[in-house]
Amino acid sequence: MALDWQQIASTAQQSVINSIPAKWRLPQTLDPSLTDLDITEQTASELVAQLREGKLSSVEVTEAFCGRAAIAHQCVNCLTAFFPDEGLARAKQLDEILAETGKPVGPLHGLPVGIKDILHMKGKNLTMGYVVWHDNKCTIDASIVQMLRNAGAVFYVRTTMPQTGMFLETWSNLFGRTKNPFNTNFSAGGSSGGDGSLVAMKGAPFCPSTDIGGSIRAPGTFNGLYAMRPTAERTAKRGMGTPAPGQISIKVSSGPNCHSMADVKLVTEILLTHYGLPFEPTAVRLPWKQIPAPAEKLSFGLMTSDSCVTPQPSIARALREIAEKLREAGHEVIEFSPPFDCWEVARSTWRLWFQTGAKETLALVASSGEPLYPTFKWYLETFDIKELTLNTQQAEWRYQFAEAWHNTKSKTRSGGPIDCLIAPCAPSAGFPHGFPVWWGYFSLWNLLDYPSIVLPLKYMKVDIDKDKKDTTYVPKDNVFDKMNWEIYDPEGWKNQPITIQLVAKQYDDEELISVAEVIDQVCNG
Amino acid sequence: MALDWQQIASTAQQSVINSIPAKWRLPQTLDPSLTDLDITEQTASELVAQLREGKLSSVEVTEAFCGRAAIAHQCVNCLTAFFPDEGLARAKQLDEILAETGKPVGPLHGLPVGIKDILHMKGKNLTMGYVVWHDNKCTIDASIVQMLRNAGAVFYVRTTMPQTGMFLETWSNLFGRTKNPFNTNFSAGGSSGGDGSLVAMKGAPFCPSTDIGGSIRAPGTFNGLYAMRPTAERTAKRGMGTPAPGQISIKVSSGPNCHSMADVKLVTEILLTHYGLPFEPTAVRLPWKQIPAPAEKLSFGLMTSDSCVTPQPSIARALREIAEKLREAGHEVIEFSPPFDCWEVARSTWRLWFQTGAKETLALVASSGEPLYPTFKWYLETFDIKELTLNTQQAEWRYQFAEAWHNTKSKTRSGGPIDCLIAPCAPSAGFPHGFPVWWGYFSLWNLLDYPSIVLPLKYMKVDIDKDKKDTTYVPKDNVFDKMNWEIYDPEGWKNQPITIQLVAKQYDDEELISVAEVIDQVCNG
Repeated sequence: MALDWQQIASTAQQSVINSIPAKWRLPQTLDPSLTDLDITEQTASELVAQLREGKLSSVEVTEAFCGRAAIAHQCVNCLTAFFPDEGLARAKQLDEILAETGKPVGPLHGLPVGIKDILHMKGKNLTMGYVVWHDNKCTIDASIVQMLRNAGAVFYVRTTMPQTGMFLETWSNLFGRTKNPFNTNFSAGGSSGGDGSLVAMKGAPFCPSTDIGGSIRAPGTFNGLYAMRPTAERTAKRGMGTPAPGQISIKVSSGPNCHSMADVKLVTEILLTHYGLPFEPTAVRLPWKQIPAPAEKLSFGLMTSDSCVTPQPSIARALREIAEKLREAGHEVIEFSPPFDCWEVARSTWRLWFQTGAKETLALVASSGEPLYPTFKWYLETFDIKELTLNTQQAEWRYQFAEAWHNTKSKTRSGGPIDCLIAPCAPSAGFPHGFPVWWGYFSLWNLLDYPSIVLPLKYMKVDIDKDKKDTTYVPKDNVFDKMNWEIYDPEGWKNQPITIQLVAKQYDDEELISVAEVIDQVCNG
Repeated sequence: MALDWQQIASTAQQSVINSIPAKWRLPQTLDPSLTDLDITEQTASELVAQLREGKLSSVEVTEAFCGRAAIAHQCVNCLTAFFPDEGLARAKQLDEILAETGKPVGPLHGLPVGIKDILHMKGKNLTMGYVVWHDNKCTIDASIVQMLRNAGAVFYVRTTMPQTGMFLETWSNLFGRTKNPFNTNFSAGGSSGGDGSLVAMKGAPFCPSTDIGGSIRAPGTFNGLYAMRPTAERTAKRGMGTPAPGQISIKVSSGPNCHSMADVKLVTEILLTHYGLPFEPTAVRLPWKQIPAPAEKLSFGLMTSDSCVTPQPSIARALREIAEKLREAGHEVIEFSPPFDCWEVARSTWRLWFQTGAKETLALVASSGEPLYPTFKWYLETFDIKELTLNTQQAEWRYQFAEAWHNTKSKTRSGGPIDCLIAPCAPSAGFPHGFPVWWGYFSLWNLLDYPSIVLPLKYMKVDIDKDKKDTTYVPKDNVFDKMNWEIYDPEGWKNQPITIQLVAKQYDDEELISVAEVIDQVCNG
């Protein structure tokens, strides 16, 4: 007989506890020797400096953070999975590589990193806080997991997130509530509340969190951490479970919850440069800019309120005092107010998030019989959420095409992907007025946003002898192909100019021009 | 009495003809001396090399292209406005600047450039082929117009586009049909058909065209020109009239129709680097990559068909012959097929274009009583176009915010915009479990996609004496503000950590980190 959602949830929660070895089980009073505080009190940047030089071993660092993560979980309920043995095995392997080669595998060599339950991780469950997904095993690694792995990270925990994913606190029927370490009556923030409370408890030096409406920053805020939401357009989204597909208007970002600005920089550079990934169609890959420390005194804008919800006294005081400190340090602070009605903005933001009307979320909750978080329903009604769609399909096509392009490397002499795609511009060298043209050869590159060049073939025109009509052709099953074939008559097209289309991947505009120059030389030179 | 649409259209068409001085009116037989062929037969790159060094004057080049544009219009009906006097006056000014300073004003110094009727141009009409907009005077310059002006271009014509803008040929009730110079029974392509036929007739060395589904490349293709659709994400969209607002899934791009690869490169660099623009919130500004000529032989993919519409024999032959030539030159050519069903892709593409269900287009056509192009209606029905919305409003907010940010320069000591915005993270230093948090301080930066950092204030905690409740506060007219104020009680928040939020403009992630390090030092150092 199938288990009901309460039984599933109880089993899920107990299994995390069961995975904690006896030595890390919390006694009534806490013994500081349970974990190595000398290690776990350090920041990621401090630790990797020692790990990369072999001054600390990954095994000892991982052991220390495993212990402290176990303690953290028992205090604030921040994990959905705990696998110290796997982490320690990977740590051992990394220690051996460094010993053998003398070279760290990457900028995070041997560092333990916590991974949120929203990121696909091969062999682990992705529940996203849904009871129905309690045993939803991942078959791929998310791009973020891949790049951290490439950079030398060690994985040993998965962290909690709220049911629906669209909440600034962390609660689910499946795993219960994640609590704030400063005050367990308070929220850990969300949706990366597991990340925030785990890092605040020093159970991980950092976690790569995700944020489409505050989900990196709310846990950072409520747990007193350093955190960054990078420009979403620059962050890799592949393999990230989404609570609401089709989010093209407002995109999800990923960035660290951590303990210092140095850690913010260390992690953000890895995430924004898509460390070690061969391709990533969900983001702009910009070079990491080297910004020197500012030579001049700076100018700051100060926004004390959005005119919707007035910050409580402590926040107002913090802003006043910081402004004063910055002025004392010689900087400038000027008042700034948003140029629009932030209430209208918030309403639209909700509607833009739920491109599919939240139907997947509601279906997932309903499928196991677990109750929906009531406020979530209230939000949907308040902001009049409707279904939009199609963006999801477009994103999938973009991935498929990028992958197909990448896979051409198995066919080229060089072993790299093709330099350029050559394609028709249109299925004809021009059309009579009023003829319904098939746009597909053009609009495909709009859908994918791949740059494309039209190159005229100067020494080639439509030729009545060479370009005879194939009278035996059987048109494909669409109205355009039939018309395109039927209308063609070499006589009518005589001497029309012929062009070809050259295509490269998104953002490779300069490379495309360079390659087109070669073709131009070959064809027209 | 109001004019009917036929009278308006007749007046519009005659006014372009009337603006052509007698000396450029076409006689029965064409005299080559009507325009300077030595000048107009050259490419943009060739001309600017001479213009920038004063070897050709802008006045003589502009005069030559004015004449040839007049001839082109009388042959193929490619203009919506002709203003040679203004062009010649600007040319004279540019000649004087070069004579006085010895320096060209930019990479296009003194070059005449045609501007499509879709781009706002101060003082000129923007009709977009709608009868109702026959006297729609522009009050701003589109970003593309601004950057070309900055680069030293001379404007003297506006070029035709089709009614609805979403067509690969160029016909409107207002201006009639634009014809193909190679065969006037054939279409000039669209929507930049005026650009394509004007450039093919050498009435302009190049035009910056626009393309969301082939509108740069169809005119390039059917007029035998060089043309490029750059990555849309890199191109500036501000001040471009849109036939279908809210196009976020598939974005419009802009690039040249011209006569050589050198011209493609010249113009595309100006467009993608947003030449001389202080800010442009509609595009990623990437550095222009310097790509050396390929040192190795290249690998090309060859896509001969999309399996929907089979190219006619001349196109198939061109692709075969080009592949052969490239192989002979030592390059590699491999077969490539799209990894998905291109018919499904085309259907979705149509729906993604019309985020607002084409309601603006239909309303504009209806408002003057002009008939709608019947095939357009057929397309909308075939692809089941529905209203989506909201993206338009989001784009406007992004612009307003970018502008407000830019305008802070009037308040700073340095005269530049602020380096960073300091704002609350949330309206409280944490909340009890289950409390409905106001997301606005977080989600605003998601909507705008501005990077933002949470910075903890290590030496500041909620203090029951310093952070007393303001019992006289009158909440704003929304449920969140009332709850945020009511719940606060210093005792309950005692010792909660306090954080602030630091924000920079989209893509300025590294700059934000650099500035945050300064603040971190001041506050926590």
